[in-house]
Order: sequence, then structure tokens, then C-alpha cells
Amino acid sequence: MQKAAIPKGTRDFGPVVMAQRNHITSVIKEVYESFGFVPIETPSMENLSTLTGKYGEEGDKLLFKILDSGDFLSKISSEELSNSSAQNLTRKISSKGLRYDLTVPFARFVVQHQNDITFPFKRYQMQPVWRADRPQKGRYREFWQCDADVIGTDSLLCEADFLSIYHKVFTGLGLPTYVVKMNHRKILESIAETVSFGGSFTTLTTIIDKLDKIGWEKVEEELLANGLESSKAPTLKQLLQEKEFSADSIEWLNDNLVDGENKQQGISELQHLLSYHNAVNGEQMNITLDFSLARGLEYYTGCIFEAVIPDSGIGSVSGGGRYDNLTDVFGLSGVSGVGISFGLDRIHDVMTKLNLFKDHKDLGSAILFCHFDELGKNHCLRLANQLRSQGLKCSVYPDKKKIGKQFDYANKTGYRWVIVIGDNEISEEVVQLKNLASGNQIKLTLNEVANHIHEAS
Amino acid sequence: MQKAAIPKGTRDFGPVVMAQRNHITSVIKEVYESFGFVPIETPSMENLSTLTGKYGEEGDKLLFKILDSGDFLSKISSEELSNSSAQNLTRKISSKGLRYDLTVPFARFVVQHQNDITFPFKRYQMQPVWRADRPQKGRYREFWQCDADVIGTDSLLCEADFLSIYHKVFTGLGLPTYVVKMNHRKILESIAETVSFGGSFTTLTTIIDKLDKIGWEKVEEELLANGLESSKAPTLKQLLQEKEFSADSIEWLNDNLVDGENKQQGISELQHLLSYHNAVNGEQMNITLDFSLARGLEYYTGCIFEAVIPDSGIGSVSGGGRYDNLTDVFGLSGVSGVGISFGLDRIHDVMTKLNLFKDHKDLGSAILFCHFDELGKNHCLRLANQLRSQGLKCSVYPDKKKIGKQFDYANKTGYRWVIVIGDNEISEEVVQLKNLASGNQIKLTLNEVANHIHEAS
Repeated sequence: MQKAAIPKGTRDFGPVVMAQRNHITSVIKEVYESFGFVPIETPSMENLSTLTGKYGEEGDKLLFKILDSGDFLSKISSEELSNSSAQNLTRKISSKGLRYDLTVPFARFVVQHQNDITFPFKRYQMQPVWRADRPQKGRYREFWQCDADVIGTDSLLCEADFLSIYHKVFTGLGLPTYVVKMNHRKILESIAETVSFGGSFTTLTTIIDKLDKIGWEKVEEELLANGLESSKAPTLKQLLQEKEFSADSIEWLNDNLVDGENKQQGISELQHLLSYHNAVNGEQMNITLDFSLARGLEYYTGCIFEAVIPDSGIGSVSGGGRYDNLTDVFGLSGVSGVGISFGLDRIHDVMTKLNLFKDHKDLGSAILFCHFDELGKNHCLRLANQLRSQGLKCSVYPDKKKIGKQFDYANKTGYRWVIVIGDNEISEEVVQLKNLASGNQIKLTLNEVANHIHEAS
Repeated sequence: MQKAAIPKGTRDFGPVVMAQRNHITSVIKEVYESFGFVPIETPSMENLSTLTGKYGEEGDKLLFKILDSGDFLSKISSEELSNSSAQNLTRKISSKGLRYDLTVPFARFVVQHQNDITFPFKRYQMQPVWRADRPQKGRYREFWQCDADVIGTDSLLCEADFLSIYHKVFTGLGLPTYVVKMNHRKILESIAETVSFGGSFTTLTTIIDKLDKIGWEKVEEELLANGLESSKAPTLKQLLQEKEFSADSIEWLNDNLVDGENKQQGISELQHLLSYHNAVNGEQMNITLDFSLARGLEYYTGCIFEAVIPDSGIGSVSGGGRYDNLTDVFGLSGVSGVGISFGLDRIHDVMTKLNLFKDHKDLGSAILFCHFDELGKNHCLRLANQLRSQGLKCSVYPDKKKIGKQFDYANKTGYRWVIVIGDNEISEEVVQLKNLASGNQIKLTLNEVANHIHEAS
């Protein structure tokens, strides 16, 4: 006998959770489509040459690698074999891996199909990704990303659209307290210039990215040890404080950053974006400027986004930004893009924690037909068939069981409606429709059922 | 520079194909839900102990295996390493595999969650599966299955539901010429008894399963060489001829099979199923009895189904049947189930071949906003935002390009509607709405746009 179990870090989703997850993806999908994004899908497995080196050294380790099929050892001498490190051997016996995110496969897709694509290309993509991370609360080895990107334009209108998309998705999900933090690569570079940071730019951003978690005092300490002059610390602290995304903030920035190309470009882009943002009532949206934000900085070249649900106790639920060189590695340059990615599993965790899933029952609108004997069962089949053609969801209880058992089943599986068919109902050509939530029962002709259910829901 | 390419046997799906695939899955999903099935999902990877040995020796070879992460060689001595066969080494360095179908994971799911499940459990599941098969036309290494199963009841009402589901899915997809072939394990066993076949039952079924492909003469030849008496050949030939699923056929069978438990049970089940089938106008459905059908016989214990679209030149697009012992291996016995599986990719191939996808354009109802300058672009953003809140799909062209280029873009990407905003439109508070299909252009206030588009589609 084998144990029924699944690999650690992976999960089964039963009907209740599926209804919740489907609710989230359908809200995101609807918003994406309302902005003219169209869907694509890429294979679960990519060549390792496509994936390796794109996510840093740590990322390479977290790739799930697929063993070549057939007699993969035939290419390897036994000497090579016994002298190999795991890493070297992997290269020889594995040429494919599971995708790690949807961004690199998208870049690969764009280059591979560039002759069939009309740019700017607005695609969305919702698929699972895999990471061989140490499983822990809120971190899974298989999880879903819901991405949208516009590639082939540097227009800041796209950034403005994404800010609107954030607002619509989060309010659509009942998460109106969301906050979208925004940064800009050029402003961040100008900040480094303004405080004359002595170390490397990456050192600076790596340290300030921890501001949220460890607080200013510890960040300052680390920065001072890594090349910040103490006289510049107060300025940096001020610059890193969260600010509203407004003309005032941009003006303040303009007054407090040292002049230079980075400042000029950064300020100009923020102003431009703000004008688009205001055109769509951006004031209603919860956007802040947070120059400590540095996620995935390695490939972001312009705006950087991160969305959080405050007080959820769960980290970011979305991130994104503009990248100018994503397709370069596959041989297509000069194509700028911008995109965001929602973490389905994180959003589900947040909504579960905030208790936003009270009413999601998949069978809430469905009818279970119950019966006393074979004659009744046959009659149920006929009636269920007719109601289905009117768009109702129906199921006939398959077995011969006491009515009480059949009702138990309806309750346990989440049916809201039950129809009981006995000899009287057959001869009178009526049905007894019972609302399991209220306990009310009503005698109806079959043609009245659909109306009654629609009115009650 | 890296080549932008994907592993052989896998595919990218662009927006047009995605719209087609989504159409197919949404039809299947809607039908499944109308019969009271609820969704589940299982992880892409299962423990190899769950998968191995379930699909025959050939199946084991076709499993995609995932390399254990980290330093997987540390557990293995270099002597073991250099003396290992690929097969033995695989066992030591890989403990997970990609799922091969949705049936075994479902059986594992049922056993693992048996205490949370109310039986009979009606679930559907639509996910990709992976097989390391030699890629060829119509055979992919990653493909989608769309399964529905009822587990925890032996009622033939479930089989009747599946026959109705076949009818609704295929007619819903515009494939009314479908044929569902049905067999029954007990009848097949009774046929073996009737012709006193000398060889094993598996030998018989393996040979007659090829009837479709190689014809009766070759089947007869093989059977004679493997234990069929030549005097019995004409009887067998008659029994294997396709028959309509009707009371007459069952009566004919009853007259022509030798008495015994298999015959009795098989005939009785077919009669019972027919009575349910007739209750839902089964006469309209294209169901035939085909006793040469023996797919997946190893685990089917009752009815067996296979669906084909004649004249498509493509093999079966769905299969299924009843299994009594599927969960036994995981330690749960006495649980009968029945299910079917649609092959999304096969159905897509058929529909493509039959040219059934003329009208699927994802952006067919969407509007592209075009403009002459920054002022117009800002105005477009504002208007698009308003139309989206009325449920319309809108996109603002992001770049500054000539109007002709913007129209080209709309045409190439499949937009049906274009709105052009110039200075006049801004000052008059109107829009010019152009139907790209007809070429008609009309001046409207913004509030008239939604109505106009709904009426035109």
C-alpha cells in the first residue's frame, strides 16, 4: 500500500478553495481585459539555457530541473560520473527546467515570435511557477503568478494604466486599503548622487530595501559602515520617507536632489506619469512614493511598483516595473516594456486572513434532485435535463438512500436548493422546491423553478 | 546571445489560439458545472511513488522526473555512481515527477482527503499533463486534460449523465457528428467465453482493439494464431460489429452470448443504463456499442467510453469508464467511480481542421482610442476610464504616431472599434466611433457608445 501524500511545498485545492481562487483570477482577468490585454500561455518547461543566469546565483539553485529522458547516462563516461559534482552532473543529465516566473518566458516568447507580434504588445498570462525554495508558511514550491506586460513602447501611459489596474483589481477584490508603493530607478540613482554614497549602488539599494523590516537606525548603521558620510544621513532619511504621489512631492524632490541627468529624467517622468494619473482620477488611488523600494532592481530601468495590503501581516502581493533590456539576452534590443505580477496565492492568503470569503460556495445556485425509488429517479433525470437547458445547475442524487440522507448530502456539499420527487409530484406534474438556507418549501410547476431561483438569489 | 526556443514537444499559445482554447474549456466547464461537478486542482508534481507502476512499463518510461534539489550526489558513493544504470541512478536522485494524467492524482486526492469529502464526490479538473513521448503531429509532451469523475457510487445514473455530457459538450462546440463508442467489461468477458477463446483475455482485447486500424481480416488472422478456433470466427466478427445503443441490440446480445454471470451482469447494466438514457431523450445522441473498444482496460471494470469526431482524421478526443479499484493502491477500497476525460489539444486540432474557429477574436468587442497629441491622449485616458466602468474593453494607443499607423495597429491586433479624439471632439464633447469591419463612422456622445456597440454585436 502506498501513502497518499504530495511533495512538500505543494498543495491540493478542493472545491471551496478553488471557488475562491477562481474568484480572484476572474477579477484580475476581467480588469486586464478591460484594458485591452490579451492572453498567452507558455510551456511549463523551458530549456535550462533560457532560465539559467536570469535570477541570480540563488535563483539558479531554486530552479526545478527535469531529468533528460531515456538512458541519460550513456553520454557520460563512468570516470566523469564518479568525479562529477552535483552541479556539473546536472548540466549533463538535465536540459530542461520548470519556469521560475512568467517574465523570462515572456521575453523569450516575444523574441521567438517577434515577426508575428504587433507592437506594442499587451499580454496577460496566468500560470503556475515553481521554485525549489525551503517550504514555509506563505511560501510554496508551486504557486501562481498573474502577469500583465506592455512591450514595445516607452510611453508612461502604460505605467498610468497599471496604477489604474491596481486600483480596480484591489477594490474589485474587496481590498480597498491596498497601498501601491512606487519608486523610480533614476530617482534612486539621483539619491545616491545626492548623498554622495561611497559604496556601490547595489550596496546602497540592498541596504535601504531593508528599511521596512529593520527600521532606520539599523539601516543607517549599515550604511555608515559601507560608505555613507554621517553628515548625509539626515538627508537620506528624509528622502527615504514615504511620500504621497503628488505635484508637491515631486517639487520637493526637485528642490532636494542634486542636479544631473538622473534627477532630470526621473523628475520629468514622474511629472508626466502624474499628469496621466490625474486624468483618470488618480487622487482616489492609494499610491505612494517609496524610494527605499528596490525589488528586482537588476532589470528595472524606470518605475518600480510593489503592492501591499497593510495590516494583513503578509508581505507584498504584487510587484513590477519598467525594463528596457529584458529581451536583449535573446537577441532583440531596443524594446522597452513594463509589467506587473499579482501573486494569486499571497492574495488568497490575505483574503482568507481578512475573512473575505464568506459566501463562496460553488453549488450555491445548484439544485439536488432527491427521490424515493427508481421511478422517481427516472423522472428526476428528465426534469433535471429540462432545467439544465434553462441554464440551471442540477444534479440527481445517484443512489437509493433515505430522503434524510439525501438532504444531508445536499447540506454537506453546499447545495442551496433541493427538489423532492415522489409519486404525487409525478402525477400532479409539479415539484417541491426547498430552500435549504431558509427551510422554506414551495410547490411549483417545472417552468416556475428558474424564475423562483433567480428571484431568490 | 541565447537562442529563443522551447523544448521540443511543447508549444507557446498566442492570443488567437488562447481565445480558441479558452472557448473549448469554457464550454466543457459550463457543461460539467450544469451537472453539479465542482473543481479541484492537484500539484503539477507528485511523488514518483504515487505515479510509478500505474501506467504500465511503457508509462513509467514516459514520466518526466524532477531532479532532487541541492547536492543530490552527497547520498551516493562514487562507486555506486559509476556502476549505476540510468534507471537505478534515477531512483536515487529523483523523487518527484510531473503528473502523467489527472486520474491517478485524483485517486490519491480522494484517499488523502477522504475525511473531508462527502461521497458521492463529483469533481472536475482541467490541468496540463506531461509525457516524455516522442513528439509528433498531434502528440505533445505537455497537453491538457479536462476530466470529470463521480466517485463513491456505483449508480448507472452517472454513466447516463456522462452520455448526456458528451452530447452537450460536442453540440456546444459545433461538433454534432461526434460518435461515442461504448463497451462494457462484462460483455467483453462474456464474448471471450462465447467464442471460447483459448488465449488470455488480455491477448484477445489487445488484438481486437486494433480492429479499427487494421480491419477484420488481419484481426482474424492474429486471433487464429493466438487461440481462436476458426469455427468461432464468424460469431466473433458479428459480435464485434458496431451496434446502435438500443433495446434491440441488447436483446440481440442476450440471444447470442453464452449464459453466465458476466453476460447476466453486463446485459442487466446495459438495460438499466438504457432506461436512464431514454429518460433524457438519449435517442438524439450518437451512442454506439462497440465491443472491440478496449482502451485502458486494465483498470476499467464496467462501461468504457471513447469519443471520436468521424472524418476529422484525428483519433479519439475523449475516453473514460468505470473503475472499481482505483483508490485501492492508496489504501481505500470499496469505492467505485466513473469518469471521462476530454483532450483539449485534440479537440482544438479537430476544430482547427474543420475550420470552426472563424470568429474568435479576443479584441472583437474592444475599442482602441487614437489621438493626435498629448492633450488628446490625456482626454482619451479619461474617456477610456469611463467606458471601462460601463463594462467595455478599452485601450489607449500609448505612443505618438500618425493616425494611419494607429489604425494599422487596431486592424492588426484585431480591434473592431476605434475612437479618434482630436481638438473638435474635445471641445464638442463627442467621440468619432469607427467600426473597422464595416468602415462606418458615427459621431456620438460618450454615453451613447456602449449602447451602439452592444446593438452592433
